[in-house]
Amino acid sequence: MRTVWLNGEFLPEDEARVPIFDRALLFGQGVYEVTPVIDGRSCNWPHHAARLARSMATARIADQTDWPTVIAELIARNSLSEGRVYLQVTGGAPADRDFLSPHEPVPATRFAFTQVAALIDNPAAHKGLRVILHPDGRWALRSAKTTQLLYAVLAKEAARDAGYDDAWLVENGVITEATSANAHIINARGVLVSHPVDHGVLPGVTRINVVAIARAMGLEVEERPFTPDELFAAREAFISSAGALVTPVVEVDGKPIGNGGPGTRTAELRQRYIALLKAG
Amino acid sequence: MRTVWLNGEFLPEDEARVPIFDRALLFGQGVYEVTPVIDGRSCNWPHHAARLARSMATARIADQTDWPTVIAELIARNSLSEGRVYLQVTGGAPADRDFLSPHEPVPATRFAFTQVAALIDNPAAHKGLRVILHPDGRWALRSAKTTQLLYAVLAKEAARDAGYDDAWLVENGVITEATSANAHIINARGVLVSHPVDHGVLPGVTRINVVAIARAMGLEVEERPFTPDELFAAREAFISSAGALVTPVVEVDGKPIGNGGPGTRTAELRQRYIALLKAG
Repeated sequence: MRTVWLNGEFLPEDEARVPIFDRALLFGQGVYEVTPVIDGRSCNWPHHAARLARSMATARIADQTDWPTVIAELIARNSLSEGRVYLQVTGGAPADRDFLSPHEPVPATRFAFTQVAALIDNPAAHKGLRVILHPDGRWALRSAKTTQLLYAVLAKEAARDAGYDDAWLVENGVITEATSANAHIINARGVLVSHPVDHGVLPGVTRINVVAIARAMGLEVEERPFTPDELFAAREAFISSAGALVTPVVEVDGKPIGNGGPGTRTAELRQRYIALLKAG
Repeated sequence: MRTVWLNGEFLPEDEARVPIFDRALLFGQGVYEVTPVIDGRSCNWPHHAARLARSMATARIADQTDWPTVIAELIARNSLSEGRVYLQVTGGAPADRDFLSPHEPVPATRFAFTQVAALIDNPAAHKGLRVILHPDGRWALRSAKTTQLLYAVLAKEAARDAGYDDAWLVENGVITEATSANAHIINARGVLVSHPVDHGVLPGVTRINVVAIARAMGLEVEERPFTPDELFAAREAFISSAGALVTPVVEVDGKPIGNGGPGTRTAELRQRYIALLKAG
């Protein structure tokens, strides 16, 4: 049984509960982060902290939790070697339901838990993912990492129903991102093309590292949207996220990308990123 | 202290809690209804039940709760004469967080509570509401009544910050609806104009009644989007919802609508709708 953390207390996972008046439950007023854990250490915290602060500002949530201490203690208490720490902050639980937050602010609800996962020895890294293209019907404020995730859930379940691993989302003729990861291609000219993070997509922490590593590898990087046609003509495609790290995409809507197997550049990006995580 | 209902049990309101792994808390996978209560009776249930079933289908939630029994018992236990019953159904609480719902389905989480409110003797009916226009950045699946409500929260809070009562949302040059109500005008030709409910807005239960009453009053009804220019040139403007019933809007972005006071047609619509609710 995991030990989780809720509002300052470490608890058995089945005892951590929140009031039915919590604003994340009623209004989706919640923000979150997922940090990768490698060799028992949480990675990339400064980037996650900066994004969490931006997400909280967008969602009008105030909180001062000392997350590095909570995360380290959760990892220790659960003897987590490899996986993720998930943390969430909500608008809190007022005494009653009202769209407007109370004039007298209520404390944010905060919780976090660990998840064991094989980030490095992940079969998907060797096999690659098969994805569908799906319309992007999410809301406008996607640069904040909020719990407004039902559209992503439905797109992922549509992919599963169709026998695929995931969905890439399409809006106004371009691919924005995957349901819970940034989407990238290495195009026919060998250029890494990735939707810019100024709007329309989540500014991925893993993506920051991917772009830096790609440049260090001598790859040209174009931060611009790409079309499904460019995707189908690409040499390689891949996603990046805290959980997937860098994972190849080998098939889209039943058509192979490149030679239909994981790309060599993608594999190198993944290896270099893992080395970076392991180096701390 | 209210008695609320959670997963089959009647509980004191401060004891009703859900696990941190509930899919409404983590992913916004929740749907809800708000039914008006007049003279101790819940109104319009068949319409709410039909919409709840559609919302659950959209959000991929299965549940068979006998809501009329729960609602009647909640009203009785709380001696509610006038106000609302709020009910919510979520994707349930699996053992861990995963975007994909578990292969072995978990039971939906279901809860409901009463709220005392003066629906009939509401000062806003006499004073009218002052609203701002605000961009509509919500997601695509607005015809489902889900807890993807953070955008509505933020728009309402932007209105409050600006010293207004609420916001009307604008997309592609037309008004879709209010943040938590349908939006209507009686235009310069005396026609009731209201955004169609086939897409982009919530199919309001109160709106169904409003359209029928307007026709019975001999008003022409056009179900089409209207622009801010048409709004500013309108004789009257109003919202409809389970909580507001029919409530006039008298000012938009600092400009008076019509003569700047509640409209006569709006007042008649409201009175006729209240009579209908009271008649059961």
